Amino acid sequence: MKATRYEGNKTFNVIEKDLEAPVKGDVRIKVAYSGVCGTDVHIYHGMMDKRVNIPITIGHEMSGTIDALGENVIGYEVGDKVVVRPLDDRGVKPSDKGFNHICEDLKFIGIDSPGSMQQYWNVPAFTLHKLRTATDLKLAALIEPLSVAVHDVRLSELKSGETAVILGGGPIGLLVAMVAKDTGANVIVSEVNPVRIAKAKDLGLDAVNPVKMDLIQYVKEKTEGRLADVVFEVAGVQPALDIMTEVAGIRGRIVMVAIHGEKKNVDLFKFFWKELKLIGARVYEKEDYEKSIQLITDNELHFEKLITDIQPLTKIQEVFENIDKKPDGLKILMDCQQ
Amino acid sequence: MKATRYEGNKTFNVIEKDLEAPVKGDVRIKVAYSGVCGTDVHIYHGMMDKRVNIPITIGHEMSGTIDALGENVIGYEVGDKVVVRPLDDRGVKPSDKGFNHICEDLKFIGIDSPGSMQQYWNVPAFTLHKLRTATDLKLAALIEPLSVAVHDVRLSELKSGETAVILGGGPIGLLVAMVAKDTGANVIVSEVNPVRIAKAKDLGLDAVNPVKMDLIQYVKEKTEGRLADVVFEVAGVQPALDIMTEVAGIRGRIVMVAIHGEKKNVDLFKFFWKELKLIGARVYEKEDYEKSIQLITDNELHFEKLITDIQPLTKIQEVFENIDKKPDGLKILMDCQQ
Repeated sequence: MKATRYEGNKTFNVIEKDLEAPVKGDVRIKVAYSGVCGTDVHIYHGMMDKRVNIPITIGHEMSGTIDALGENVIGYEVGDKVVVRPLDDRGVKPSDKGFNHICEDLKFIGIDSPGSMQQYWNVPAFTLHKLRTATDLKLAALIEPLSVAVHDVRLSELKSGETAVILGGGPIGLLVAMVAKDTGANVIVSEVNPVRIAKAKDLGLDAVNPVKMDLIQYVKEKTEGRLADVVFEVAGVQPALDIMTEVAGIRGRIVMVAIHGEKKNVDLFKFFWKELKLIGARVYEKEDYEKSIQLITDNELHFEKLITDIQPLTKIQEVFENIDKKPDGLKILMDCQQ
Repeated sequence: MKATRYEGNKTFNVIEKDLEAPVKGDVRIKVAYSGVCGTDVHIYHGMMDKRVNIPITIGHEMSGTIDALGENVIGYEVGDKVVVRPLDDRGVKPSDKGFNHICEDLKFIGIDSPGSMQQYWNVPAFTLHKLRTATDLKLAALIEPLSVAVHDVRLSELKSGETAVILGGGPIGLLVAMVAKDTGANVIVSEVNPVRIAKAKDLGLDAVNPVKMDLIQYVKEKTEGRLADVVFEVAGVQPALDIMTEVAGIRGRIVMVAIHGEKKNVDLFKFFWKELKLIGARVYEKEDYEKSIQLITDNELHFEKLITDIQPLTKIQEVFENIDKKPDGLKILMDCQQ
């Protein structure tokens, strides 16, 4: 079987290795597609060299079929289409208060242990979600990032008729916008990259460039002065942090989706003055995966529009190099059988 | 009648003026006591000279009795003991979404219009809450700041058995701690001033100095590793902002009570990682006043311990000068009939 390996220093290799039998409680998955996540790009850039155990196979946004069952795996059969919820929460403690998905000792599969950018992948059966037979495995590779968006929107308590502003129109931002719109909210995407703005519009979303127009004024006009009920900060840059507290109306909820590696400037006065809420959101819970699977199965939202490229596993080095050269793409899938 | 006036430049005057008849919808209150609020000290320091209309009578933490009724005032009689909820929300608009207490055009009585540091005070009847005949008017002057604490604790959704850490043991911090403890929570006050630590202990609160010990470790031990369920940031300084995201456990709620005039550094990564919530809280709503009045009426919590000094109106200049010289006091009341 082929497996890719991140070797450090912006380098991937593709190696040949033997198939491994799944240990007790595990299954072996024949991986169909594995999407490239922003986190994978961070790893490629060497930003997470302290955390990942180099050399390592990364990847966690995947779809596939069960290829072999280890002992004690019940409820699954060889040939079942599945996705993995890549959270190993076996270290959960009472002090995690039941929030297993963010437990202190959480291991993220594909970062803290080997991931899906290989032809076959052995994982614990408790991480699996079964898909319907008819599910498109290309779309199914979007279930993991879509679950992030579903989780973000759920934690925001966004209601039909409310207005949501999404700061940042990358893959996660657009998925959040799609889920928010599907909830019945009025959605405005704020993004500076014209290619991504065009993509957002192609998805039927209202998308504007905050550098070229006054976003606050625009949202004010669209909401009869109420401003945003919910803001999703998915951009991860200081201008987004500056605008998030401005564009949120009274009692607005701001969901912190972006990962800010350093302490940043925040207008806490605005939190006090308008009684804003900041809601940290990380990964997903089981119910988010279930909703995400339903959305992908129905595909009424045309998720295929988010997939901008599909490349064979053997092209992994080129794929990551191209992301740096031309950051216009959205979701790139690795075809793990080629 | 005597009235105090802030004249700018750290100066109060006491003037003699005629009693005014209350206009339609207003009452005239014979003010009993008027507490000195941190905001009053800010005004005295000239920090709010752009907002206040100098010369102005300030003050809004008060108790008194109705002295005269304007036309169209129903439900009140001369002699009724009352407190004022000093929020003039007559400019409320639909875009305020029903949150009248923080409406965009809110006028705060005692800042944006004349306040209670005078012998008689004319205010709209809609701001009044009636007290029982037996209510101690000294304690009743604490109803306004206590309502802030009640509001903060309500918005935190603190539950019995949870652990709350209060950063800052000034008057509001201690009131928050008292209300939190009354809710059935385990309460830890973090404060650097030894006089305030002693006062907190006298109130039956667990109080520690985070400069002299490891607050995180202390809370960890007290909670079997869960850390704080709720943190109240009442200190308004960067070290409190640094520690608030550390001392909060998974899905912890941090209530922003302090007023931060400038943008500050916040560890947004921790919000993401532990799915923390930041909850802005400002003033109070009607139900907070009602709960606060009940707490003061019962006085099972011994609110009298918070009153560290009572001085006649004529001493106002000296009182504010002494606050700067010796910041150990907690709540100072002006006796408005002397």
